[in-house]
Amino acid sequence: MSVFDELLAANERHVAGFARGQLPAPPARALAVLTCMDARILPLDVFGLAPGDAHVIRNAGGRATDDALRSLLVSSHVLGTRAVAVVHHTECGMTKLTDADFAATIERATGHSPGDLPLYAIEDPDAALQGDVTWLAESPLLPAGTEVAGFLYDVRTGVLSLVVPPLVVGDTTAC
Amino acid sequence: MSVFDELLAANERHVAGFARGQLPAPPARALAVLTCMDARILPLDVFGLAPGDAHVIRNAGGRATDDALRSLLVSSHVLGTRAVAVVHHTECGMTKLTDADFAATIERATGHSPGDLPLYAIEDPDAALQGDVTWLAESPLLPAGTEVAGFLYDVRTGVLSLVVPPLVVGDTTAC
Repeated sequence: MSVFDELLAANERHVAGFARGQLPAPPARALAVLTCMDARILPLDVFGLAPGDAHVIRNAGGRATDDALRSLLVSSHVLGTRAVAVVHHTECGMTKLTDADFAATIERATGHSPGDLPLYAIEDPDAALQGDVTWLAESPLLPAGTEVAGFLYDVRTGVLSLVVPPLVVGDTTAC
Repeated sequence: MSVFDELLAANERHVAGFARGQLPAPPARALAVLTCMDARILPLDVFGLAPGDAHVIRNAGGRATDDALRSLLVSSHVLGTRAVAVVHHTECGMTKLTDADFAATIERATGHSPGDLPLYAIEDPDAALQGDVTWLAESPLLPAGTEVAGFLYDVRTGVLSLVVPPLVVGDTTAC
């Protein structure tokens, strides 16, 4: 049985207990969470959120990439969110390699270079989180008044810490 | 109390019940799920996955963007995943607007144009899912042998359907 067959089989249990078919699309708490794809992070559990409460955007590192901004623009302008929690975490794979190491790993394995695909390895975790929050808060494209804050999640203890207090879009020095 | 304070307060309950501090970083089922940020989708629940089983990558639409590929390269080359489930869903916000509508909405609200930021609106849902799966399966950068399949999740019923049967990286006609 392939992993895809297993997913489909497991979905039958999900459907049997399904009871939230009437939830609306706009997040009830007007919140978007941007965090890492790490398999140990359960965003709703970490934050005590219910289904329907928040958009959850995830990528390698929880980085504020152009694509994360794209998602946040949909989240805010189309679906009304007004707060962004950027959540990095301890023991992140992105802190364990450099962009150059990573590019070399891919090229060794496949014979192809990732070229100019940005890899977003994290050399300095504090600077990366501060930079990601600041970059979003300074975006001229997010709605004025949107709050952006930075958190660190400890995958060994479950503890979430506020590292970058909320910045407000429109209040920061525009870049 | 701000939404960020509420998240920190809720985290105290998460920490009190925390019992998975020893999970390793590599996903136990060597799986990555790429899906939409939609607040109604609970990926682990939909698929019957346990904490630690899979990377979860999420963006507006669950699109195979360059940044999703970046995350999948980390997932596969660094953390050993070998299967990708691309999951789009019914009633997706990205199907309700065009790139041009969306750009106009942002410009009206902020006075700024998103310029050449790709927006990835979905005009034809079937074509978008097929295209996203095919684009990933044809990537020369993913490990040969990686399987990529496309699913549709119905947010009203919880039902997951296989729409694009697995393609294998390296078996497809390279682009």
